Amino acid sequence: MLTSRQNSEVKRLRALASQKKARDLSGQFYGDSPKLLLEAIGRRLEVTSVLGTGPRPGYLPGDVPYQETDPEIIDYISPQASPQGIVFSARIPVSAEKPTLKNAVILESIQDPGNLGTLIRTANAFGAGWVILTGSCADLWSAKTLRASMGAVFRQRTAVLTLEELSALREREGTVLLGAALSDRSRDLRLVQYESPAVCIGNEGNGLSRRLLEMCNEEIIIPMVPDCESLNASAAGAVVMWELLGRRLP
Amino acid sequence: MLTSRQNSEVKRLRALASQKKARDLSGQFYGDSPKLLLEAIGRRLEVTSVLGTGPRPGYLPGDVPYQETDPEIIDYISPQASPQGIVFSARIPVSAEKPTLKNAVILESIQDPGNLGTLIRTANAFGAGWVILTGSCADLWSAKTLRASMGAVFRQRTAVLTLEELSALREREGTVLLGAALSDRSRDLRLVQYESPAVCIGNEGNGLSRRLLEMCNEEIIIPMVPDCESLNASAAGAVVMWELLGRRLP
Repeated sequence: MLTSRQNSEVKRLRALASQKKARDLSGQFYGDSPKLLLEAIGRRLEVTSVLGTGPRPGYLPGDVPYQETDPEIIDYISPQASPQGIVFSARIPVSAEKPTLKNAVILESIQDPGNLGTLIRTANAFGAGWVILTGSCADLWSAKTLRASMGAVFRQRTAVLTLEELSALREREGTVLLGAALSDRSRDLRLVQYESPAVCIGNEGNGLSRRLLEMCNEEIIIPMVPDCESLNASAAGAVVMWELLGRRLP
Repeated sequence: MLTSRQNSEVKRLRALASQKKARDLSGQFYGDSPKLLLEAIGRRLEVTSVLGTGPRPGYLPGDVPYQETDPEIIDYISPQASPQGIVFSARIPVSAEKPTLKNAVILESIQDPGNLGTLIRTANAFGAGWVILTGSCADLWSAKTLRASMGAVFRQRTAVLTLEELSALREREGTVLLGAALSDRSRDLRLVQYESPAVCIGNEGNGLSRRLLEMCNEEIIIPMVPDCESLNASAAGAVVMWELLGRRLP
């Protein structure tokens, strides 16, 4: 039974939970719910370590290392206010697949991990091809992003690209890029007819960068009643993704 | 300059910020951002008290009581981790208008004030007639709900009704009620054709109660790709409200 905060595995998991650098260096991420763990196993990710407050759960494959610990250690490791009795680490999956922009969702500088996770969950539900992160987004593999995505990060094809890489990809493919914006020259979302466009969703406060807007074929806008407050990032993203992806599902 | 935690106004604001009972008894609510305060003034709510860390803001009408205080007092009053230097109270507006179900959004037992506020913000942006709360929703006038709504609670016509009252209103009006659900007998959202229906959105974990579902003319579902995680409450609500309200805006 693991009871010391000084234990190297406790220290390692705690670092993975709180530091992007630790995740980048080790190529592993941290999760803290049974649901996420089941998702990771279901997606055949390599789970490298599990700590829990009870006996080894029956659903764990035989080759996954498990150690029992006490609730205070779980509390110490987890950034959550009320963790659910289990924490784990797994290897960040690496794919050789190259991203394409057809039916892609491009997220630029989404700062809040909750928003990022929710947007990826929505993109996944509506059948986005790829979700591409650009600019300075929250970390895709942070515990908060994973939790908000309800594990959609494991299922959704994702890539992190610079604006230069995005621009080169677009040149090569000729995919139409639409920018969710609020400007005068924006086109009413209901009138958009392109086949398999990519849609760009921008930062919570500032929207899309000028550089990304300049790459877009067209800017689109969600029509609203006059004088209302604009939608929040997750709600606006849900409407745009529904209209361009979900609504077109068979 | 107000510097004591024992001051009666400090105690009163702190109670309003954290206790529904204090809000119910006094008929006042608490807010803690300049944006919310400006919205409240713009909507001609009766602002009963403002405390801030600087000199009296120029935008305050002359009859609004203002007291200067120090940042520790604001921290003490505010439930926010980083309050923005101003807290205030105002009278909860009471309307003699009777709610109608035409183009209404009915929220049942939405537990999280963030979700509740976001849903009201979205309903307001898409031109909902009334937003009607039923079951055990988070408090409409809590600081968190107001913040998530970005002040939409001030602009949106809202009512709190029991299921009995809702049922009687529906009988009287004959308005079509649609339930956002996930059941087998649900109809694809894209195929819904009713004019000015009311849409019911249920609890984050459990959806709509059986009693409310039984009142609905039809259950509707958002089509998604197979085997994905369902949408979160705010995202699902945004898509349903967009399709039934926003998409029908002129």
